[in-house]
Amino acid sequence: MNDETAVLDAARRARVAATDLAVASRATKDAALQAMADALLAAAPAVLEANAGDCERAAANGTPEAMIDRLRLDDGRIAAMAQGLRDVAGLPDPVGEVVRGSTLPNGLELRQVRVPFGVVGIIYEARPNVTADATGLALKSGNAVLLRGSSSAKASNTAIVGALRDGIVTTGLPADAVQLVPGDTHEAVKHLMRARGLVDVLIPRGGAALIKSVVEESTVPVIETGVGNCHVYVDADADLDAAEKILINAKVQRPSVCNAAETLLVHADVAAEFVPRAMAALGAAGVTVHGDAEFARLGGSAVVAANDDDWDTEYLSLDIAAAVVPSLEDAITHIRAHGSGHTEAILTRSQAAARRFVAAVDAAAVVVNASTRFTDGGEFGFGAEIGISTQKLHARGPMGLPELTSTKYVVTGDGHVRP
Amino acid sequence: MNDETAVLDAARRARVAATDLAVASRATKDAALQAMADALLAAAPAVLEANAGDCERAAANGTPEAMIDRLRLDDGRIAAMAQGLRDVAGLPDPVGEVVRGSTLPNGLELRQVRVPFGVVGIIYEARPNVTADATGLALKSGNAVLLRGSSSAKASNTAIVGALRDGIVTTGLPADAVQLVPGDTHEAVKHLMRARGLVDVLIPRGGAALIKSVVEESTVPVIETGVGNCHVYVDADADLDAAEKILINAKVQRPSVCNAAETLLVHADVAAEFVPRAMAALGAAGVTVHGDAEFARLGGSAVVAANDDDWDTEYLSLDIAAAVVPSLEDAITHIRAHGSGHTEAILTRSQAAARRFVAAVDAAAVVVNASTRFTDGGEFGFGAEIGISTQKLHARGPMGLPELTSTKYVVTGDGHVRP
Repeated sequence: MNDETAVLDAARRARVAATDLAVASRATKDAALQAMADALLAAAPAVLEANAGDCERAAANGTPEAMIDRLRLDDGRIAAMAQGLRDVAGLPDPVGEVVRGSTLPNGLELRQVRVPFGVVGIIYEARPNVTADATGLALKSGNAVLLRGSSSAKASNTAIVGALRDGIVTTGLPADAVQLVPGDTHEAVKHLMRARGLVDVLIPRGGAALIKSVVEESTVPVIETGVGNCHVYVDADADLDAAEKILINAKVQRPSVCNAAETLLVHADVAAEFVPRAMAALGAAGVTVHGDAEFARLGGSAVVAANDDDWDTEYLSLDIAAAVVPSLEDAITHIRAHGSGHTEAILTRSQAAARRFVAAVDAAAVVVNASTRFTDGGEFGFGAEIGISTQKLHARGPMGLPELTSTKYVVTGDGHVRP
Repeated sequence: MNDETAVLDAARRARVAATDLAVASRATKDAALQAMADALLAAAPAVLEANAGDCERAAANGTPEAMIDRLRLDDGRIAAMAQGLRDVAGLPDPVGEVVRGSTLPNGLELRQVRVPFGVVGIIYEARPNVTADATGLALKSGNAVLLRGSSSAKASNTAIVGALRDGIVTTGLPADAVQLVPGDTHEAVKHLMRARGLVDVLIPRGGAALIKSVVEESTVPVIETGVGNCHVYVDADADLDAAEKILINAKVQRPSVCNAAETLLVHADVAAEFVPRAMAALGAAGVTVHGDAEFARLGGSAVVAANDDDWDTEYLSLDIAAAVVPSLEDAITHIRAHGSGHTEAILTRSQAAARRFVAAVDAAAVVVNASTRFTDGGEFGFGAEIGISTQKLHARGPMGLPELTSTKYVVTGDGHVRP
């Protein structure tokens, strides 16, 4: 069986499984999630052995230690995956929710009801925990899932998926509710991306290059996730004490994630006071500042001269671009030109400035007087998150269980014909 | 200026216009819609002259009369376009609606608010009324619109867009809120489909071939519309009098539209009684029936033998495919294999059969004891419709004004940082 046949065959089996999942009750799905958690814990020794092999091969290939750390599993991480599945079991079932409904003037009853997508494809990098997390969210929302992880995590993912399938079948649901995409080559991924009609939506999770390639090559509808060139704008009317705390939190608390700040913009009216303070605080936190000329003039010799690329860079590291802007409107214009549509923050005591910024900035999340780090499904109270959408179609911002569903109109009459 | 430069330049001007539209008040947008209607009526002589030229050229090119009829405008059709714009002015503004909101445990205020997409592209065929209808819906929802109509309607569309732009500017909104995509070649459309980042969503309106080519070539997110291979399933427990009326309504009332029935499925238990009745009624209405062997055995010599393609054909004409199925489950299986996900109807007095059909059939609309013809934005009470989505992402079924928007999370704190 060649790659294309194997991928399409897996997708067809996922579609068949999806028809069972679509009509499964919440009780059955929750039982499956608990059984998956139990099976994963029971399979922990086999999963750890497979993972040790992946880590050894990665080390032999010269993979950086930071990447091996993300790949590596231990008992704690497996327990966390199992607990994640149990947590999802505790969340409300989005399927069947009546989104809107009415009785039309002619007596027809109209209801718009949440239904699963059907088959969801997830393309992700070398984090084996995504294998269990994504499967749990897909199953709870009634979807079959096709998983394409990094080839460096293949043994780990195979062991995890084997355990999850063992758990699922104990509840009478089909094992093919979760499958790894067969084949190791880039061609196999391409076949997944072209399986329109069999796969309902693809969600790439990972770096900008992965997401760009999926968006460009896929004929299956894609939900873009996760690239964040997030700005913190310190307005002329900002509380500078609060601004300093928020800036440091947004940049330093977890620099490797998409909702960390990557650019600081400071209004000229407060630049003489705030830039030196920001430099001292960022410097103490180990952050390298890439500043424009005015920021460098006020910030001193520690400021590295920014080049054109800095304004568009998602560093994901202890670096930040920084500029002084003459006005609120210039901050908005800068963000329009360089933002990635993820999270943009304004720090101000001015109601008018906040209102203008919120209305004019086009992003998944616009934050007033708080850290960019709050754009997160957990922080928003969604209970779980499959990713953060930076596109405008279907879902925007953190995606929880409802964002993994579509809707269906149910129209009920008693012999109605259209006049 | 070559095609690519011209298309991208138009898209950039649309983006600039979109930033003004996004913050325009409902009052301003409604005034613009009324001004557009006034300008269109004032320009009627010029529009009719341009349209007469289009119709002459179409006739000279041997275009079928039915297509020329769709292309042709008269005073009544122009008045209807103007009234359509005024009707949209009367609809609620979707922008600014708070979709959900809460105060998080840490005191952050979270609101999810409807915002415009930004720039919407519409690709459509030779119906000049779409030019005004789509522009009205886009403007009311705060979007700039790039219109790509059929080249056969170019003079008509140019005249209509000129009038609409004249109306818009009287209210202070930018004329570039509505533009025709420059260039006549297929290459020009391709540049529109690759303008990711400048165009937020593309909506193709037209036949299956047009929609397929947009879906395959576009890197801009697409909302698929309008292909309907709709089934009417007459269950063992159907009221056969009602079934006959619904079948004829679904097939005959307006056969050229996407919510017309294209396949009839009859449960074997009622086939001996219903098939001859259906044949008589369909025959009297001038419908050609393409039946399977069992349908032909019961339906008599007027039944044309169906081939494999008939089950997948959207006739859009007075033709219907017809089969006898042994069970409800077989009807569901048939629809799963051949339906286009538009509208599927069951006719039954059985609550259990209706419930099973509604749960198991995966389509934008599932109809119980009523005609498929009700799947329509106007019938659903949406006031207006940009098309009927047959995809699962973003919007499914008739799309009104809210479906032309995205959302944005607004997060408000007073110095919140993430612990």
